[in-house]
Parts: sequence; C-alpha cells; structure tokens
Amino acid sequence: MRFSSEVVVTLRPSINDPQGLVVHDGLRQLGFTGVRSARVGKYIELEVEAADEASAQAVVTQMCEKLLRNPVIEDYRITVRPLGGAPSSGSPT
Amino acid sequence: MRFSSEVVVTLRPSINDPQGLVVHDGLRQLGFTGVRSARVGKYIELEVEAADEASAQAVVTQMCEKLLRNPVIEDYRITVRPLGGAPSSGSPT
Repeated sequence: MRFSSEVVVTLRPSINDPQGLVVHDGLRQLGFTGVRSARVGKYIELEVEAADEASAQAVVTQMCEKLLRNPVIEDYRITVRPLGGAPSSGSPT
Repeated sequence: MRFSSEVVVTLRPSINDPQGLVVHDGLRQLGFTGVRSARVGKYIELEVEAADEASAQAVVTQMCEKLLRNPVIEDYRITVRPLGGAPSSGSPT
C-alpha cells in the first residue's frame, strides 16, 4: 500500500536562524510591519510503500533519524496518510 | 492579536527537483527500498500581528505573493492559527 508522508524539519528554537532573519527583514522592508518572527525549515514530501500506516510512520521516522534531520540542531515532525483514498481511521488528516 | 502561520512552498509538479532526487537516492542507498519519490520544499513559520484570523491569512498570502514563493516554479499553501489559545471556530487547525 502506498502512503504519502510530509516531513517538516525545523531548527531547534535555541539555534540561530540566519535565513529566517533575512526573511523577517525582507518582509518588514516590503511593508509587512505586522511580522514578529520568521523561521525557515525544510519540507520533504515522500511517497513510500508500506504494509500499513503504522509501518509507514515507522519507516519515515527511521529516514528522519538516519538522513533527513541533523539531530544536533534540528527537530522534525511527520504526517502520514494513505495515497489515493480516504485517510485511515484514527488519523483523520 | 497574534497568529502563528505555517507556509509550505513547493516546486510545481512539472518542475525538476534535483534536491529531491538526491534525497530519494540517498534514502535508497541507506536501504529504504520502499521510498517511491521524494520532493523537497521550504517551510516558513511566521508570527504575525493581525486583527483577526482572516486578515492574518490575507497578509500571509500577500507575503507569499510578494516575497516567499517564486510564481514561475513554485506553489504555496498557508495555515493560520491564533497563538496561545484555542483555534478560532471555523478553522479547527
């Protein structure tokens, strides 16, 4: 069964984010004075083959641990949903 | 009122994604044979001051149109939620 997984990798809150500062300053210079902070991360969209949603979640977690995030400075979060069908019960999104 | 907004900027499906190919190949070389595709995008977390959720959504849309995404090759999507409180009615996430 095929699953679509979204991985968001963000810098830990204590880590400086120069890219986010550039975005923040750029937005303010464009007149968006309401912006209070901006932080930039990575977004990775994966399609994986797995027996069920739990194993898809497990395998994507392994991918994050082994390749996608730098454990020293980054956090990650994962969402998994079946492709081409309604989300399975217990995980409405 | 302060809102937290998440912006995901992705390459349009028709656009080549060399970074995604590298992730895909890297994962396969690590033994993740179940991975079928990988695409990499940007994730931007913003805090904005706005009168209500609708204006926060509108201002973040303007930020995307003016700075955050390249309209030739990228799409974007936005979620907005109030900071430090329950999500307002009508927009449960």
